[in-house]
Amino acid sequence: MKNSLKRIFLYRACLVRLKLMGVEKVFSTTLASETGVTSDQVRKDFSEFKIKGNKRGGYDINNLLEKMEQLFHRNKDNNIVLIGMGNMGLALSKYNKFVQRNMNIVATFDIDPFKQKTRSGIPVYPMNRLKEIIDRFNVKVAIVAVPEISAQEVADELIRYGITGIVNFAPVLLKVSHEVFINNVNLCDELESVIYYVHKQINAAGNKNLELLYKDMKY
Amino acid sequence: MKNSLKRIFLYRACLVRLKLMGVEKVFSTTLASETGVTSDQVRKDFSEFKIKGNKRGGYDINNLLEKMEQLFHRNKDNNIVLIGMGNMGLALSKYNKFVQRNMNIVATFDIDPFKQKTRSGIPVYPMNRLKEIIDRFNVKVAIVAVPEISAQEVADELIRYGITGIVNFAPVLLKVSHEVFINNVNLCDELESVIYYVHKQINAAGNKNLELLYKDMKY
Repeated sequence: MKNSLKRIFLYRACLVRLKLMGVEKVFSTTLASETGVTSDQVRKDFSEFKIKGNKRGGYDINNLLEKMEQLFHRNKDNNIVLIGMGNMGLALSKYNKFVQRNMNIVATFDIDPFKQKTRSGIPVYPMNRLKEIIDRFNVKVAIVAVPEISAQEVADELIRYGITGIVNFAPVLLKVSHEVFINNVNLCDELESVIYYVHKQINAAGNKNLELLYKDMKY
Repeated sequence: MKNSLKRIFLYRACLVRLKLMGVEKVFSTTLASETGVTSDQVRKDFSEFKIKGNKRGGYDINNLLEKMEQLFHRNKDNNIVLIGMGNMGLALSKYNKFVQRNMNIVATFDIDPFKQKTRSGIPVYPMNRLKEIIDRFNVKVAIVAVPEISAQEVADELIRYGITGIVNFAPVLLKVSHEVFINNVNLCDELESVIYYVHKQINAAGNKNLELLYKDMKY
């Protein structure tokens, strides 16, 4: 994901919070300090995504949020297929925030005929019906939650049937052509990055204690 | 997550793939072209994370991977607590890749006494045992998978008991002090970013077709 787009998501989360607090107008400086960027950056990002607002007295929060919704095509339904109904696939298929934001998982797929019967509430189809469903619902976006060993094969099949955007939960880099957009969500990486920073801080604190100790010894 | 750290994860994924293909040595130029960055960037990132390697004949892949493991403290166990055993929390608690990478969810917590009994296999404790477990297992990292309405309260409690790093799956920005590292994983944002790019491409293709159409009309 591009960093500017990531910041748009951050601004939006911040705007939602401000709105809940009863705030109606916001200056770019407020948004900047709340999200830890410069106000120049806020204005630059808004300009990149063609988000305009009357700056006199600040941006109107509702107006900003509406413009951001339009960016993500929340005004129309987005049909999505989900491949792989393991634990993660099942949790994603039940994630009600997707529906709240007009992102509809219209069908899920699994090679396991048992899962095709037992995951009640959500239609689970065998893989040989993939093309039919993608065509019928005009699907362009897929979520891949299969084991890493089958992820590339599944991605190839999806792309062959017209999918052009994939959120990939399998911890493997997919090889695809430039027209296809892949967003990798690697849960281990996300957790490891936190562990990295926590240990870095513990080490830094340890070194500081050592420094203090040496300082004490000197004087 | 810092961009340089993100690239380290990308290099690692690429190295794992090369290793599976039987490759033993890699040049920074190869790693660069495989991951879509410049080879200068690869060397700069390696230097930032103090990853050194004999460049004569390329880096040794096993050696590089080992150094990256050390970065994330894979040589020792990392104890983690998980709060919120809804669908997503349950899937995360069962995600076996964490264990494979020495990241151990030692306990999960939920306010629902029913879940405390039924999610078999994983201990699910009531929230009032949080401090005891964090102390006992010397836990510094937590996964928050509670509804957004309780996320801030849960984070505050975790931090009070000594947690300094959080992976937050609740779609809300947490307010914490600077010593605490938060990594937000917002599943809606991840999916919406793909939808954004897919629609952008469709629009671009549409405009291109229009351009071609106008061109045809002109000549």
